[in-house]
Amino acid sequence: MPSYERIVTGGSQLLAWQLKDQPVLIVGGGQVAADRLRCVLAADAKVTLVSPASGLGEEVRYRLFSEQWPHLTYIDRIFQDDDVKGQYMVLTALDDSTISRHIHSLCKQQKIIVNVADVIPLCDFFFGSVIRRGPLQVMVSTGGKGPRIANRIRKMIEDALPHDCGEAIENVGTLRAELRRRAPAQEEGKRRMAWMVRVCDRWSLEQLAAMDDAMREKILDGWEDDRALYYADVTSASTLASISLKWQSLWRRCPYSRAAGQFGILAGLMGFSFGIASTLAFQTIRLKR
Amino acid sequence: MPSYERIVTGGSQLLAWQLKDQPVLIVGGGQVAADRLRCVLAADAKVTLVSPASGLGEEVRYRLFSEQWPHLTYIDRIFQDDDVKGQYMVLTALDDSTISRHIHSLCKQQKIIVNVADVIPLCDFFFGSVIRRGPLQVMVSTGGKGPRIANRIRKMIEDALPHDCGEAIENVGTLRAELRRRAPAQEEGKRRMAWMVRVCDRWSLEQLAAMDDAMREKILDGWEDDRALYYADVTSASTLASISLKWQSLWRRCPYSRAAGQFGILAGLMGFSFGIASTLAFQTIRLKR
Repeated sequence: MPSYERIVTGGSQLLAWQLKDQPVLIVGGGQVAADRLRCVLAADAKVTLVSPASGLGEEVRYRLFSEQWPHLTYIDRIFQDDDVKGQYMVLTALDDSTISRHIHSLCKQQKIIVNVADVIPLCDFFFGSVIRRGPLQVMVSTGGKGPRIANRIRKMIEDALPHDCGEAIENVGTLRAELRRRAPAQEEGKRRMAWMVRVCDRWSLEQLAAMDDAMREKILDGWEDDRALYYADVTSASTLASISLKWQSLWRRCPYSRAAGQFGILAGLMGFSFGIASTLAFQTIRLKR
Repeated sequence: MPSYERIVTGGSQLLAWQLKDQPVLIVGGGQVAADRLRCVLAADAKVTLVSPASGLGEEVRYRLFSEQWPHLTYIDRIFQDDDVKGQYMVLTALDDSTISRHIHSLCKQQKIIVNVADVIPLCDFFFGSVIRRGPLQVMVSTGGKGPRIANRIRKMIEDALPHDCGEAIENVGTLRAELRRRAPAQEEGKRRMAWMVRVCDRWSLEQLAAMDDAMREKILDGWEDDRALYYADVTSASTLASISLKWQSLWRRCPYSRAAGQFGILAGLMGFSFGIASTLAFQTIRLKR
Protein backbone atom coordinates (compact mmCIF):
# COMPACT_ATOMS: atom_id res chain seq x y z
CA MET A 1 0.00 0.00 0.00
CA PRO A 2 1.42 3.38 -0.96
CA SER A 3 1.79 5.95 1.79
CA TYR A 4 -0.07 9.22 1.35
CA GLU A 5 0.56 12.86 2.18
CA ARG A 6 0.70 13.41 5.94
CA ILE A 7 -2.23 15.51 7.15
CA VAL A 8 -1.26 18.51 9.29
CA THR A 9 -4.12 19.33 11.67
CA GLY A 10 -4.98 22.64 13.33
CA GLY A 11 -5.97 24.48 10.15
CA SER A 12 -9.11 26.30 9.13
CA GLN A 13 -11.17 25.04 6.23
CA LEU A 14 -10.71 27.67 3.53
CA LEU A 15 -13.78 27.81 1.33
CA ALA A 16 -15.07 29.93 -1.55
CA TRP A 17 -18.62 30.68 -0.49
CA GLN A 18 -21.36 31.31 -3.07
CA LEU A 19 -23.42 34.26 -1.79
CA LYS A 20 -25.06 35.31 -5.07
CA ASP A 21 -28.68 36.34 -4.29
CA GLN A 22 -28.45 34.91 -0.77
CA PRO A 23 -29.97 37.05 1.99
CA VAL A 24 -27.25 38.37 4.31
CA LEU A 25 -27.86 40.51 7.40
CA ILE A 26 -25.30 42.99 8.74
CA VAL A 27 -25.98 44.46 12.18
CA GLY A 28 -24.04 47.66 12.83
CA GLY A 29 -22.89 50.72 10.88
CA GLY A 30 -19.26 51.43 11.83
CA GLN A 31 -15.95 50.60 10.13
CA VAL A 32 -16.25 46.82 10.65
CA ALA A 33 -19.77 46.94 9.15
CA ALA A 34 -18.30 48.83 6.18
CA ASP A 35 -15.64 46.09 5.72
CA ARG A 36 -18.31 43.37 5.82
CA LEU A 37 -20.57 45.30 3.45
CA ARG A 38 -17.77 45.64 0.90
CA CYS A 39 -17.13 41.88 1.01
CA VAL A 40 -20.70 40.67 0.64
CA LEU A 41 -21.62 43.25 -2.02
CA ALA A 42 -18.63 42.01 -4.05
CA ALA A 43 -20.08 38.50 -3.73
CA ASP A 44 -23.50 39.67 -5.05
CA ALA A 45 -25.44 38.92 -1.86
CA LYS A 46 -28.85 40.46 -1.09
CA VAL A 47 -27.85 42.56 1.87
CA THR A 48 -29.91 44.05 4.69
CA LEU A 49 -28.11 46.44 7.02
CA VAL A 50 -29.69 47.26 10.38
CA SER A 51 -28.40 50.24 12.38
CA PRO A 52 -29.81 53.52 13.69
CA ALA A 53 -28.79 56.37 11.34
CA SER A 54 -26.87 57.94 14.22
CA GLY A 55 -24.55 54.90 14.25
CA LEU A 56 -23.61 55.01 10.55
CA GLY A 57 -19.98 55.70 9.70
CA GLU A 58 -18.91 57.61 6.60
CA GLU A 59 -18.19 54.61 4.39
CA VAL A 60 -21.47 52.83 5.21
CA ARG A 61 -23.32 56.11 4.44
CA TYR A 62 -21.50 56.32 1.13
CA ARG A 63 -22.44 52.76 0.14
CA LEU A 64 -26.06 53.23 1.24
CA PHE A 65 -26.81 56.69 -0.10
CA SER A 66 -24.23 57.65 -2.75
CA GLU A 67 -23.92 54.33 -4.56
CA GLN A 68 -26.76 52.46 -6.24
CA TRP A 69 -27.08 48.87 -5.03
CA PRO A 70 -30.32 47.22 -6.15
CA HIS A 71 -30.02 44.42 -3.59
CA LEU A 72 -29.09 46.53 -0.57
CA THR A 73 -31.79 47.36 1.99
CA TYR A 74 -31.24 49.72 4.90
CA ILE A 75 -33.32 49.58 8.11
CA ASP A 76 -32.95 52.64 10.33
CA ARG A 77 -33.42 51.30 13.86
CA ILE A 78 -31.77 49.05 16.42
CA PHE A 79 -31.77 45.27 15.93
CA GLN A 80 -34.99 43.26 16.57
CA ASP A 81 -35.10 39.48 16.97
CA ASP A 82 -37.19 39.03 13.81
CA ASP A 83 -34.37 40.48 11.69
CA VAL A 84 -32.48 37.19 11.52
CA LYS A 85 -35.52 35.31 10.21
CA GLY A 86 -34.97 33.87 6.74
CA GLN A 87 -31.36 35.07 6.59
CA TYR A 88 -28.69 32.84 5.07
CA MET A 89 -25.79 34.49 6.89
CA VAL A 90 -25.63 37.01 9.74
CA LEU A 91 -22.65 39.31 10.43
CA THR A 92 -22.63 41.42 13.57
CA ALA A 93 -20.37 44.45 13.85
CA LEU A 94 -21.35 45.92 17.21
CA ASP A 95 -19.40 47.19 20.21
CA ASP A 96 -22.04 45.82 22.58
CA SER A 97 -21.08 42.20 23.25
CA THR A 98 -24.34 41.41 25.11
CA ILE A 99 -26.46 42.08 22.02
CA SER A 100 -23.87 40.28 19.87
CA ARG A 101 -24.15 37.16 22.05
CA HIS A 102 -27.93 37.37 21.89
CA ILE A 103 -27.89 37.56 18.08
CA HIS A 104 -25.45 34.64 17.97
CA SER A 105 -27.77 32.43 20.04
CA LEU A 106 -30.78 33.38 17.87
CA CYS A 107 -28.78 32.34 14.79
CA LYS A 108 -27.70 29.02 16.33
CA GLN A 109 -31.35 28.22 17.23
CA GLN A 110 -32.39 28.88 13.63
CA LYS A 111 -29.30 27.24 12.12
CA ILE A 112 -28.08 30.40 10.42
CA ILE A 113 -24.33 30.74 9.81
CA VAL A 114 -22.92 33.67 11.78
CA ASN A 115 -19.81 35.78 12.43
CA VAL A 116 -19.59 37.97 15.53
CA ALA A 117 -16.83 40.54 14.95
CA ASP A 118 -14.00 40.31 17.50
CA VAL A 119 -15.48 37.33 19.39
CA ILE A 120 -13.59 34.33 18.02
CA PRO A 121 -15.60 31.56 19.76
CA LEU A 122 -18.85 32.96 18.32
CA CYS A 123 -17.74 32.71 14.71
CA ASP A 124 -18.56 29.94 12.26
CA PHE A 125 -15.92 31.49 10.01
CA PHE A 126 -13.39 34.31 9.75
CA PHE A 127 -12.68 36.84 7.05
CA GLY A 128 -9.11 36.66 5.73
CA SER A 129 -6.88 39.07 3.88
CA VAL A 130 -7.93 38.83 0.20
CA ILE A 131 -6.35 39.79 -3.14
CA ARG A 132 -8.66 40.23 -6.11
CA ARG A 133 -7.62 40.27 -9.79
CA GLY A 134 -10.80 39.94 -11.85
CA PRO A 135 -12.02 36.35 -11.40
CA LEU A 136 -8.90 35.44 -9.38
CA GLN A 137 -9.17 35.64 -5.60
CA VAL A 138 -6.39 34.76 -3.19
CA MET A 139 -7.01 34.60 0.57
CA VAL A 140 -4.28 34.65 3.20
CA SER A 141 -5.23 33.29 6.62
CA THR A 142 -3.05 32.79 9.69
CA GLY A 143 -5.81 31.28 11.82
CA GLY A 144 -5.88 34.50 13.85
CA LYS A 145 -2.21 34.05 14.83
CA GLY A 146 -0.85 37.04 12.99
CA PRO A 147 -3.20 39.36 11.08
CA ARG A 148 -0.37 41.90 10.70
CA ILE A 149 1.92 39.31 9.11
CA ALA A 150 -0.95 38.07 6.93
CA ASN A 151 -1.06 41.54 5.41
CA ARG A 152 2.67 41.52 4.81
CA ILE A 153 2.45 38.12 3.12
CA ARG A 154 -0.50 39.37 1.06
CA LYS A 155 1.68 42.19 -0.28
CA MET A 156 4.44 39.69 -1.15
CA ILE A 157 1.94 37.59 -3.09
CA GLU A 158 0.59 40.69 -4.85
CA ASP A 159 4.14 41.42 -6.06
CA ALA A 160 4.58 37.86 -7.29
CA LEU A 161 1.33 37.64 -9.27
CA PRO A 162 1.64 38.56 -12.95
CA HIS A 163 -0.28 41.83 -13.36
CA ASP A 164 -2.41 40.38 -16.16
CA CYS A 165 -3.38 37.03 -14.58
CA GLY A 166 -6.98 38.26 -14.21
CA GLU A 167 -7.26 38.70 -18.00
CA ALA A 168 -5.67 35.27 -18.54
CA ILE A 169 -8.38 33.59 -16.46
CA GLU A 170 -11.16 35.63 -18.11
CA ASN A 171 -9.89 34.59 -21.54
CA VAL A 172 -9.77 30.91 -20.57
CA GLY A 173 -13.35 31.26 -19.29
CA THR A 174 -14.45 32.80 -22.61
CA LEU A 175 -12.62 30.11 -24.59
CA ARG A 176 -14.36 27.38 -22.59
CA ALA A 177 -17.79 29.01 -23.04
CA GLU A 178 -17.23 29.40 -26.80
CA LEU A 179 -16.10 25.78 -27.06
CA ARG A 180 -19.28 24.65 -25.33
CA ARG A 181 -21.29 26.73 -27.82
CA ARG A 182 -19.51 25.04 -30.75
CA ALA A 183 -19.60 21.50 -29.34
CA PRO A 184 -22.52 21.43 -26.91
CA ALA A 185 -23.03 17.64 -26.79
CA GLN A 186 -23.11 16.24 -23.23
CA GLU A 187 -21.13 13.17 -24.26
CA GLU A 188 -18.26 15.34 -25.50
CA GLY A 189 -17.69 16.72 -21.97
CA LYS A 190 -14.57 14.66 -21.30
CA ARG A 191 -13.01 15.45 -24.67
CA ARG A 192 -13.81 19.17 -24.16
CA MET A 193 -12.12 19.13 -20.76
CA ALA A 194 -9.03 17.26 -22.04
CA TRP A 195 -8.68 19.65 -24.97
CA MET A 196 -8.96 22.71 -22.70
CA VAL A 197 -6.21 21.31 -20.45
CA ARG A 198 -3.95 20.70 -23.44
CA VAL A 199 -4.44 24.24 -24.77
CA CYS A 200 -3.96 25.86 -21.34
CA ASP A 201 -0.77 23.93 -20.65
CA ARG A 202 0.72 25.10 -23.96
CA TRP A 203 0.07 28.79 -23.29
CA SER A 204 1.87 30.92 -20.73
CA LEU A 205 -0.23 33.21 -18.53
CA GLU A 206 1.02 36.21 -20.52
CA GLN A 207 0.02 34.57 -23.79
CA LEU A 208 -3.42 33.66 -22.40
CA ALA A 209 -3.83 37.27 -21.27
CA ALA A 210 -2.99 38.47 -24.79
CA MET A 211 -5.58 36.18 -26.46
CA ASP A 212 -7.98 38.22 -28.63
CA ASP A 213 -11.13 37.26 -30.62
CA ALA A 214 -9.24 36.42 -33.80
CA MET A 215 -6.77 34.21 -31.94
CA ARG A 216 -9.60 32.47 -30.09
CA GLU A 217 -11.35 31.65 -33.39
CA LYS A 218 -8.15 30.08 -34.74
CA ILE A 219 -7.67 28.03 -31.57
CA LEU A 220 -11.26 26.81 -31.78
CA ASP A 221 -10.67 25.72 -35.39
CA GLY A 222 -8.09 23.32 -33.92
CA TRP A 223 -10.88 21.59 -31.97
CA GLU A 224 -12.34 20.04 -35.15
CA ASP A 225 -9.17 18.06 -35.96
CA ASP A 226 -8.28 17.68 -32.25
CA ARG A 227 -5.22 19.91 -32.30
CA ALA A 228 -4.18 22.09 -29.36
CA LEU A 229 -2.53 25.10 -30.97
CA TYR A 230 0.36 27.08 -29.49
CA TYR A 231 0.46 30.85 -29.19
CA ALA A 232 2.91 30.98 -32.10
CA ASP A 233 0.46 29.00 -34.30
CA VAL A 234 -2.30 31.59 -34.03
CA THR A 235 -0.34 34.86 -34.13
CA SER A 236 1.26 36.50 -37.10
CA ALA A 237 3.90 37.62 -34.62
CA SER A 238 7.38 36.24 -35.16
CA THR A 239 9.04 33.74 -32.81
CA LEU A 240 11.23 36.62 -31.67
CA ALA A 241 8.14 38.54 -30.50
CA SER A 242 6.93 35.56 -28.52
CA ILE A 243 10.38 35.09 -26.90
CA SER A 244 10.35 38.77 -26.03
CA LEU A 245 6.91 38.36 -24.39
CA LYS A 246 8.30 35.45 -22.35
CA TRP A 247 11.33 37.47 -21.21
CA GLN A 248 9.31 40.51 -20.34
CA SER A 249 7.10 38.36 -18.16
CA LEU A 250 10.00 36.64 -16.38
CA TRP A 251 11.45 40.05 -15.78
CA ARG A 252 8.26 41.57 -14.39
CA ARG A 253 7.46 38.60 -12.21
CA CYS A 254 10.64 38.90 -10.18
CA PRO A 255 10.34 41.73 -7.67
CA TYR A 256 14.12 42.02 -7.55
CA SER A 257 14.65 41.93 -11.30
CA ARG A 258 15.69 45.58 -11.35
CA ALA A 259 18.31 44.81 -8.71
CA ALA A 260 19.44 41.84 -10.82
CA GLY A 261 19.70 44.12 -13.85
CA GLN A 262 21.81 46.60 -11.92
CA PHE A 263 23.90 43.74 -10.59
CA GLY A 264 24.44 42.55 -14.17
CA ILE A 265 25.56 45.99 -15.36
CA LEU A 266 27.87 46.32 -12.36
CA ALA A 267 29.30 42.84 -13.00
CA GLY A 268 29.80 43.73 -16.68
CA LEU A 269 31.60 47.01 -15.87
CA MET A 270 33.77 45.34 -13.25
CA GLY A 271 34.63 42.58 -15.70
CA PHE A 272 35.47 45.19 -18.35
CA SER A 273 37.79 47.12 -16.01
CA PHE A 274 39.36 43.94 -14.80
CA GLY A 275 39.87 42.86 -18.42
CA ILE A 276 41.74 46.09 -19.24
CA ALA A 277 43.72 45.97 -16.02
CA SER A 278 44.79 42.37 -16.45
CA THR A 279 45.77 42.83 -20.09
CA LEU A 280 47.93 45.80 -19.15
CA ALA A 281 49.37 43.95 -16.15
CA PHE A 282 50.15 40.91 -18.29
CA GLN A 283 51.91 43.07 -20.90
CA THR A 284 53.87 44.94 -18.25
CA ILE A 285 55.11 41.65 -16.76
CA ARG A 286 56.04 40.37 -20.22
CA LEU A 287 57.88 43.60 -21.07
CA LYS A 288 59.89 43.44 -17.86
CA ARG A 289 61.17 39.96 -18.67
CA MET B 1 -17.50 63.16 1.22
CA PRO B 2 -14.45 61.08 0.29
CA SER B 3 -14.87 58.46 -2.39
CA TYR B 4 -14.18 54.88 -1.42
CA GLU B 5 -12.71 51.83 -3.12
CA ARG B 6 -14.90 50.71 -6.01
CA ILE B 7 -16.48 47.32 -5.32
CA VAL B 8 -15.97 44.73 -8.07
CA THR B 9 -18.89 42.28 -8.03
CA GLY B 10 -19.01 38.69 -9.27
CA GLY B 11 -16.64 37.25 -6.66
CA SER B 12 -17.00 34.43 -4.18
CA GLN B 13 -16.86 35.15 -0.48
CA LEU B 14 -13.60 33.57 0.65
CA LEU B 15 -13.88 32.48 4.27
CA ALA B 16 -11.75 30.59 6.78
CA TRP B 17 -14.24 28.16 8.26
CA GLN B 18 -13.86 26.83 11.82
CA LEU B 19 -14.60 23.10 11.71
CA LYS B 20 -12.90 22.05 14.97
CA ASP B 21 -15.10 19.39 16.64
CA GLN B 22 -17.96 20.07 14.21
CA PRO B 23 -19.74 17.00 12.82
CA VAL B 24 -19.09 16.65 9.09
CA LEU B 25 -20.54 13.93 6.87
CA ILE B 26 -18.80 12.65 3.74
CA VAL B 27 -20.85 10.42 1.44
CA GLY B 28 -18.68 8.37 -0.93
CA GLY B 29 -15.33 6.62 -0.87
CA GLY B 30 -13.47 7.43 -4.11
CA GLN B 31 -10.78 9.98 -4.95
CA VAL B 32 -13.00 13.04 -4.41
CA ALA B 33 -14.02 11.63 -1.00
CA ALA B 34 -10.30 11.22 -0.20
CA ASP B 35 -9.67 14.88 -1.13
CA ARG B 36 -12.56 16.04 1.09
CA LEU B 37 -11.43 13.79 3.94
CA ARG B 38 -7.90 15.22 3.84
CA CYS B 39 -9.29 18.78 4.05
CA VAL B 40 -11.71 18.29 6.93
CA LEU B 41 -9.31 16.14 8.98
CA ALA B 42 -6.74 18.93 8.68
CA ALA B 43 -9.41 21.28 10.08
CA ASP B 44 -10.02 18.96 13.09
CA ALA B 45 -13.64 18.14 12.23
CA LYS B 46 -15.47 15.11 13.66
CA VAL B 47 -15.92 13.17 10.45
CA THR B 48 -18.35 10.42 9.52
CA LEU B 49 -17.77 8.71 6.19
CA VAL B 50 -20.57 6.63 4.68
CA SER B 51 -19.80 4.24 1.82
CA PRO B 52 -20.02 0.50 1.18
CA ALA B 53 -16.56 -1.07 1.66
CA SER B 54 -16.64 -2.14 -1.99
CA GLY B 55 -16.66 1.56 -2.98
CA LEU B 56 -13.59 2.61 -0.98
CA GLY B 57 -10.57 3.79 -2.90
CA GLU B 58 -6.99 3.20 -1.77
CA GLU B 59 -6.45 6.57 -0.09
CA VAL B 60 -9.73 6.47 1.85
CA ARG B 61 -8.83 2.92 3.02
CA TYR B 62 -5.45 4.19 4.15
CA ARG B 63 -6.96 7.07 6.16
CA LEU B 64 -9.61 4.82 7.70
CA PHE B 65 -7.61 1.69 8.50
CA SER B 66 -3.87 2.53 8.51
CA GLU B 67 -3.97 5.92 10.22
CA GLN B 68 -5.36 6.58 13.71
CA TRP B 69 -8.00 9.33 13.71
CA PRO B 70 -9.91 9.52 17.01
CA HIS B 71 -12.73 11.60 15.49
CA LEU B 72 -13.22 9.62 12.30
CA THR B 73 -16.16 7.18 12.09
CA TYR B 74 -16.72 4.84 9.18
CA ILE B 75 -20.15 3.40 8.30
CA ASP B 76 -20.02 0.50 5.86
CA ARG B 77 -23.26 0.79 3.90
CA ILE B 78 -25.01 3.00 1.37
CA PHE B 79 -26.41 6.40 2.43
CA GLN B 80 -29.62 6.57 4.50
CA ASP B 81 -31.69 9.74 5.01
CA ASP B 82 -31.01 9.80 8.77
CA ASP B 83 -27.27 10.18 8.13
CA VAL B 84 -27.53 13.95 7.61
CA LYS B 85 -29.32 14.46 10.95
CA GLY B 86 -27.31 16.62 13.35
CA GLN B 87 -24.54 17.25 10.81
CA TYR B 88 -22.94 20.67 10.54
CA MET B 89 -21.69 20.20 6.99
CA VAL B 90 -22.35 17.54 4.35
CA LEU B 91 -20.03 16.73 1.44
CA THR B 92 -21.17 14.32 -1.24
CA ALA B 93 -18.64 12.64 -3.51
CA LEU B 94 -20.81 10.28 -5.55
CA ASP B 95 -21.07 9.48 -9.24
CA ASP B 96 -24.85 9.04 -8.95
CA SER B 97 -26.35 12.51 -9.39
CA THR B 98 -29.87 11.37 -8.39
CA ILE B 99 -28.76 10.42 -4.88
CA SER B 100 -26.61 13.56 -4.72
CA ARG B 101 -29.63 15.75 -5.51
CA HIS B 102 -31.67 13.88 -2.93
CA ILE B 103 -29.02 14.47 -0.24
CA HIS B 104 -28.82 18.12 -1.25
CA SER B 105 -32.58 18.61 -0.75
CA LEU B 106 -32.47 16.84 2.64
CA CYS B 107 -29.72 19.25 3.70
CA LYS B 108 -31.61 22.31 2.49
CA GLN B 109 -34.72 21.21 4.44
CA GLN B 110 -32.64 20.85 7.59
CA LYS B 111 -30.54 23.97 6.91
CA ILE B 112 -27.27 22.07 6.74
CA ILE B 113 -24.49 23.57 4.62
CA VAL B 114 -23.64 21.29 1.70
CA ASN B 115 -21.28 20.72 -1.22
CA VAL B 116 -22.22 18.34 -4.02
CA ALA B 117 -19.05 17.44 -5.93
CA ASP B 118 -19.17 18.46 -9.61
CA VAL B 119 -22.66 20.03 -9.43
CA ILE B 120 -21.98 23.77 -9.15
CA PRO B 121 -25.59 24.93 -8.53
CA LEU B 122 -25.92 22.51 -5.59
CA CYS B 123 -22.96 23.91 -3.67
CA ASP B 124 -23.06 26.42 -0.83
CA PHE B 125 -19.30 26.68 -1.27
CA PHE B 126 -16.35 25.41 -3.30
CA PHE B 127 -12.99 24.02 -2.30
CA GLY B 128 -10.07 26.03 -3.69
CA SER B 129 -6.43 25.25 -4.31
CA VAL B 130 -4.70 25.68 -0.92
CA ILE B 131 -1.08 26.18 0.23
CA ARG B 132 -0.26 25.33 3.84
CA ARG B 133 2.84 26.47 5.77
CA GLY B 134 2.22 25.77 9.44
CA PRO B 135 -0.40 28.26 10.61
CA LEU B 136 -0.35 30.03 7.25
CA GLN B 137 -2.96 29.03 4.69
CA VAL B 138 -3.35 30.57 1.25
CA MET B 139 -6.29 29.73 -1.00
CA VAL B 140 -6.42 30.40 -4.73
CA SER B 141 -9.89 30.52 -6.28
CA THR B 142 -10.91 31.36 -9.85
CA GLY B 143 -14.64 31.05 -9.20
CA GLY B 144 -14.63 27.82 -11.23
CA LYS B 145 -13.34 29.70 -14.32
CA GLY B 146 -9.94 28.04 -14.49
CA PRO B 147 -9.02 25.30 -12.00
CA ARG B 148 -5.97 24.42 -14.11
CA ILE B 149 -4.71 28.00 -14.01
CA ALA B 150 -5.48 28.21 -10.28
CA ASN B 151 -2.97 25.40 -9.79
CA ARG B 152 -0.37 27.19 -11.86
CA ILE B 153 -0.87 30.39 -9.85
CA ARG B 154 -0.67 28.38 -6.63
CA LYS B 155 2.78 27.15 -7.67
CA MET B 156 3.87 30.72 -8.43
CA ILE B 157 2.77 31.81 -4.97
CA GLU B 158 4.55 28.83 -3.39
CA ASP B 159 7.78 29.99 -5.05
CA ALA B 160 7.29 33.54 -3.79
CA LEU B 161 6.60 32.66 -0.15
CA PRO B 162 9.66 32.68 2.11
CA HIS B 163 10.25 29.05 3.10
CA ASP B 164 10.24 29.93 6.79
CA CYS B 165 7.13 32.12 6.94
CA GLY B 166 5.30 29.38 8.89
CA GLU B 167 7.89 29.61 11.70
CA ALA B 168 7.66 33.41 11.65
CA ILE B 169 3.90 33.29 12.29
CA GLU B 170 4.31 30.61 14.98
CA ASN B 171 6.91 32.75 16.75
CA VAL B 172 4.68 35.83 16.65
CA GLY B 173 1.87 33.71 18.12
CA THR B 174 4.16 32.53 20.96
CA LEU B 175 5.36 36.09 21.60
CA ARG B 176 1.77 37.32 21.84
CA ALA B 177 0.78 34.47 24.20
CA GLU B 178 3.82 35.13 26.44
CA LEU B 179 3.04 38.84 26.50
CA ARG B 180 -0.51 38.09 27.62
CA ARG B 181 0.91 35.90 30.39
CA ARG B 182 3.19 38.73 31.58
CA ALA B 183 0.60 41.51 31.25
CA PRO B 184 -2.78 39.81 31.54
CA ALA B 185 -4.87 42.87 32.49
CA GLN B 186 -7.94 43.36 30.27
CA GLU B 187 -7.46 47.13 30.19
CA GLU B 188 -3.96 46.74 28.72
CA GLY B 189 -5.39 45.07 25.61
CA LYS B 190 -4.96 48.12 23.37
CA ARG B 191 -1.39 48.80 24.57
CA ARG B 192 -0.54 45.09 24.05
CA MET B 193 -1.87 45.18 20.51
CA ALA B 194 -0.02 48.42 19.67
CA TRP B 195 3.25 47.07 21.08
CA MET B 196 2.92 43.82 19.10
CA VAL B 197 2.38 45.79 15.90
CA ARG B 198 5.46 47.92 16.61
CA VAL B 199 7.66 44.87 17.24
CA CYS B 200 6.36 42.98 14.19
CA ASP B 201 6.88 45.94 11.89
CA ARG B 202 10.52 46.23 13.00
CA TRP B 203 11.35 42.58 12.30
CA SER B 204 11.62 40.99 8.86
CA LEU B 205 9.94 37.63 8.31
CA GLU B 206 13.35 35.94 8.34
CA GLN B 207 14.23 37.58 11.65
CA LEU B 208 10.87 36.58 13.14
CA ALA B 209 11.48 33.02 11.98
CA ALA B 210 14.88 33.03 13.70
CA MET B 211 13.48 34.24 17.07
CA ASP B 212 14.44 31.82 19.85
CA ASP B 213 13.50 31.68 23.58
CA ALA B 214 16.40 33.88 24.73
CA MET B 215 15.61 36.53 22.12
CA ARG B 216 11.91 36.45 23.04
CA GLU B 217 12.74 37.06 26.71
CA LYS B 218 14.81 40.11 25.78
CA ILE B 219 12.04 41.47 23.57
CA LEU B 220 9.52 41.01 26.37
CA ASP B 221 11.81 42.95 28.73
CA GLY B 222 11.28 45.89 26.39
CA TRP B 223 7.53 45.79 27.18
CA GLU B 224 8.12 47.16 30.71
CA ASP B 225 9.63 50.44 29.50
CA ASP B 226 7.50 50.43 26.32
CA ARG B 227 10.32 49.84 23.88
CA ALA B 228 9.94 47.79 20.70
CA LEU B 229 13.35 46.20 20.17
CA TYR B 230 14.92 45.45 16.82
CA TYR B 231 16.47 42.13 15.85
CA ALA B 232 19.94 43.66 16.24
CA ASP B 233 19.08 44.75 19.82
CA VAL B 234 18.45 41.20 21.04
CA THR B 235 21.12 39.24 19.17
CA SER B 236 24.79 39.09 19.94
CA ALA B 237 25.17 38.75 16.18
CA SER B 238 27.00 41.59 14.46
CA THR B 239 25.29 44.01 12.09
CA LEU B 240 27.10 42.17 9.31
CA ALA B 241 25.32 38.93 10.25
CA SER B 242 21.96 40.65 10.14
CA ILE B 243 22.73 42.20 6.73
CA SER B 244 23.73 38.74 5.53
CA LEU B 245 20.39 37.34 6.77
CA LYS B 246 18.58 40.07 4.84
CA TRP B 247 20.51 39.35 1.65
CA GLN B 248 20.02 35.63 1.88
CA SER B 249 16.30 36.17 2.19
CA LEU B 250 16.08 38.58 -0.76
CA TRP B 251 18.01 36.03 -2.76
CA ARG B 252 15.80 33.10 -1.81
CA ARG B 253 12.57 35.00 -2.31
CA CYS B 254 13.24 35.66 -5.97
CA PRO B 255 12.44 32.57 -8.04
CA TYR B 256 14.78 33.81 -10.76
CA SER B 257 17.66 34.69 -8.46
CA ARG B 258 19.72 31.78 -9.72
CA ALA B 259 19.14 33.01 -13.27
CA ALA B 260 20.15 36.50 -12.14
CA GLY B 261 23.34 35.06 -10.62
CA GLN B 262 24.17 33.26 -13.86
CA PHE B 263 23.35 36.42 -15.78
CA GLY B 264 25.74 38.33 -13.52
CA ILE B 265 28.58 35.84 -14.08
CA LEU B 266 27.94 35.90 -17.82
CA ALA B 267 27.90 39.71 -17.83
CA GLY B 268 31.15 39.73 -15.84
CA LEU B 269 32.87 37.28 -18.23
CA MET B 270 31.67 39.17 -21.29
CA GLY B 271 32.85 42.43 -19.77
CA PHE B 272 36.22 40.83 -19.04
CA SER B 273 36.68 39.53 -22.58
CA PHE B 274 35.54 42.85 -24.00
CA GLY B 275 37.99 44.62 -21.71
CA ILE B 276 40.91 42.52 -23.01
CA ALA B 277 39.75 42.86 -26.62
CA SER B 278 39.31 46.61 -26.46
CA THR B 279 42.66 47.18 -24.76
CA LEU B 280 44.41 45.14 -27.44
CA ALA B 281 42.43 46.85 -30.19
CA PHE B 282 43.26 50.27 -28.79
CA GLN B 283 46.95 49.40 -28.59
CA THR B 284 47.00 48.01 -32.15
CA ILE B 285 45.41 51.20 -33.48
CA ARG B 286 47.91 53.34 -31.57
CA LEU B 287 50.87 51.25 -32.83
CA LYS B 288 49.70 51.61 -36.44
CA ARG B 289 49.64 55.41 -36.22
